[in-house]
Amino acid sequence: MNQKKIIKQSFQVNFDFNLIFTSKLFETDNNILVDLLSSNSTSKTKAIVVVDTGVIDSHPQLKEDIDNYFKQYNDSITLEGSVLEIPGGEQSKNDETFIQSILENINTFGIDRHSYVIAIGGGAVLDAVGFAAAIAHRGVRLIRIPTTVLSQNDSGIGVKNGINYFGKKNFAGSFAVPFAVINDDSFLSTLHERDWRSGISEAIKVALIKDYSFFEWIESKVSDLNNRDKDAMNELIYRCADLHMKHIQNSGDAFEQGSSRPLDFGHWAAHKLEQLSNFEVRHGEAVAIGIALDSTYSYLKGYLSKPELVRVLDCIIGLGFNISYHQMNEQIIKGLEEFREHLGGKLTIMLLKSLGTGFEVHEMDKNIVLESINYISSYHSKKIAI
Amino acid sequence: MNQKKIIKQSFQVNFDFNLIFTSKLFETDNNILVDLLSSNSTSKTKAIVVVDTGVIDSHPQLKEDIDNYFKQYNDSITLEGSVLEIPGGEQSKNDETFIQSILENINTFGIDRHSYVIAIGGGAVLDAVGFAAAIAHRGVRLIRIPTTVLSQNDSGIGVKNGINYFGKKNFAGSFAVPFAVINDDSFLSTLHERDWRSGISEAIKVALIKDYSFFEWIESKVSDLNNRDKDAMNELIYRCADLHMKHIQNSGDAFEQGSSRPLDFGHWAAHKLEQLSNFEVRHGEAVAIGIALDSTYSYLKGYLSKPELVRVLDCIIGLGFNISYHQMNEQIIKGLEEFREHLGGKLTIMLLKSLGTGFEVHEMDKNIVLESINYISSYHSKKIAI
Repeated sequence: MNQKKIIKQSFQVNFDFNLIFTSKLFETDNNILVDLLSSNSTSKTKAIVVVDTGVIDSHPQLKEDIDNYFKQYNDSITLEGSVLEIPGGEQSKNDETFIQSILENINTFGIDRHSYVIAIGGGAVLDAVGFAAAIAHRGVRLIRIPTTVLSQNDSGIGVKNGINYFGKKNFAGSFAVPFAVINDDSFLSTLHERDWRSGISEAIKVALIKDYSFFEWIESKVSDLNNRDKDAMNELIYRCADLHMKHIQNSGDAFEQGSSRPLDFGHWAAHKLEQLSNFEVRHGEAVAIGIALDSTYSYLKGYLSKPELVRVLDCIIGLGFNISYHQMNEQIIKGLEEFREHLGGKLTIMLLKSLGTGFEVHEMDKNIVLESINYISSYHSKKIAI
Repeated sequence: MNQKKIIKQSFQVNFDFNLIFTSKLFETDNNILVDLLSSNSTSKTKAIVVVDTGVIDSHPQLKEDIDNYFKQYNDSITLEGSVLEIPGGEQSKNDETFIQSILENINTFGIDRHSYVIAIGGGAVLDAVGFAAAIAHRGVRLIRIPTTVLSQNDSGIGVKNGINYFGKKNFAGSFAVPFAVINDDSFLSTLHERDWRSGISEAIKVALIKDYSFFEWIESKVSDLNNRDKDAMNELIYRCADLHMKHIQNSGDAFEQGSSRPLDFGHWAAHKLEQLSNFEVRHGEAVAIGIALDSTYSYLKGYLSKPELVRVLDCIIGLGFNISYHQMNEQIIKGLEEFREHLGGKLTIMLLKSLGTGFEVHEMDKNIVLESINYISSYHSKKIAI
């Protein structure tokens, strides 16, 4: 009656990009980057580079390597300005001045929608640079070069970016598809032990909800991974990345317009634990605990058998994760509502019905959550005592 | 050789929304907005409202109407906080504090990805609010209520938002699809004459490149439009909006990943003229001149016949547009390179091969552009003299 006319709009947008695996990306005989940068352009193209300070600290020759690399291929690409460094970790996402300086470089060097921003670093730096690249000119081309296990197998290969605002993690951000992602395994060798281990929990997570054979494989590689076997880690990253990317491809909701977020198995408690610990517990470490918690909950609710739960907990503990923190207490329960709020809509939590098969529920029994917390804490103590 | 493995990612994202035409949206018996806000939710939902100060000035009762409307429907929706006012025009896009205050309201009132930001105003205000809504939580639901001819038939119904940065128009922004757009024709009656006229040029533009019968219709309605006939304007807005939306739907490049931007016929010169005049010449006015210029260029290059050109120029002049500004000089030429830079890639300009049919070229002959400037200026003088 009040509606006089209506025009229905409906369209699809296609997105594609490659995740390329390599070693020693900036050695001058490695043509992957130059091929990529000149693949989509008839004329000479330009790029700016932003690097995580932590990566420079571990690879002091990196800036020189980058300079030499671009000099070598100066016919087809120009490196504009010098490499911009921004600090790694949440600092890069908390302090707006870093976003500001990336935008300034994009402006100063005339980076347009057909030129490139190349980001090298851990997940936080990729998130911050990705956000700046996504909003400049409504999106300039972004090449992500993740340097940690976590960013190479999960956070760096997806379609999200973000910065913290009002003290809230990822309050501002967008869904933006990178032009390409390059995983260079030479960055992994210098990782500190905690960073080497951290990212493994995302592989356990995706294996448990989607791929039993991958979980079996991880179980079989616990000691290789603990001994920093490069081949085992490369395989773990590849399979984990592949499962994540296939999920985005097949979910039908790549930009998360609904309430369901299956890849966030174990994450509701993880986010809260990170916050309660003032980010002393890192994301991957928190996810390991979140997985232990929601697997135990799945067992206590009768979905998962005891032998299955034992395999999950033993795998996590075997990889050296600590699953007993003093911040793991009833405060964690608040994470449920915050998780719902962040995504909006209905609470949707992934649980396990068997190893390799997840399913969703829309409420959690708080008493059983508390029971699960006690269960994993005492399980861990007994293990340690052995 | 250097590439060890590759994972190819490829997926589609579906977007849809409705453009609803109505009158007197905030009268309490108009259920369009409440139906829309409660359509996608099982529980009570919430919204914040941001309004263009210029709209409040012309409709002093609007804030009270909005309050009463939400009180009436308090069972299904909550209006959070009071209506936030931000100034109209480029000011809303130039001053970051407005974005900041919108983000603050989103945060304070817990607007999540399933709650709503309702923006009421001209294109600039919709752009600024749209940007804030797009980056908060990676996108909260945005309802756009455009209040000018230009925003109801073009800028408010598309998928872009943006703010100015580094003194550059739309330097920061994103492609983000609104939850819905509502065109309420009661806002049009109070428009100043310049704003009433301004948006008509976008209708001429899209008619000339896509729909000859619509151009004929506009020619037939020149005097009705000049006399502010409401039915004629409603029809013009509907047909123009429909052509714009169908273009986005069928272009295959809704998020402008390529270099072509067919809807920007006449816009390369328009953007430059706006800037040269310090935005004294408004967007729609500048577009009218840009259309005159590129139509004349099409004639001088032999694509368009003289009678066809005369019809275009007479229609524009007949609608009361001024096509002779002292800023229309050789400085305009710089707009070509700036236009290319903004989108990136190859220069791509739409010209006319007949009335209703556009085609693209990748270079412009500067001498003929200058000749076209002189042509329209002397054509206009002669017309005025008659």
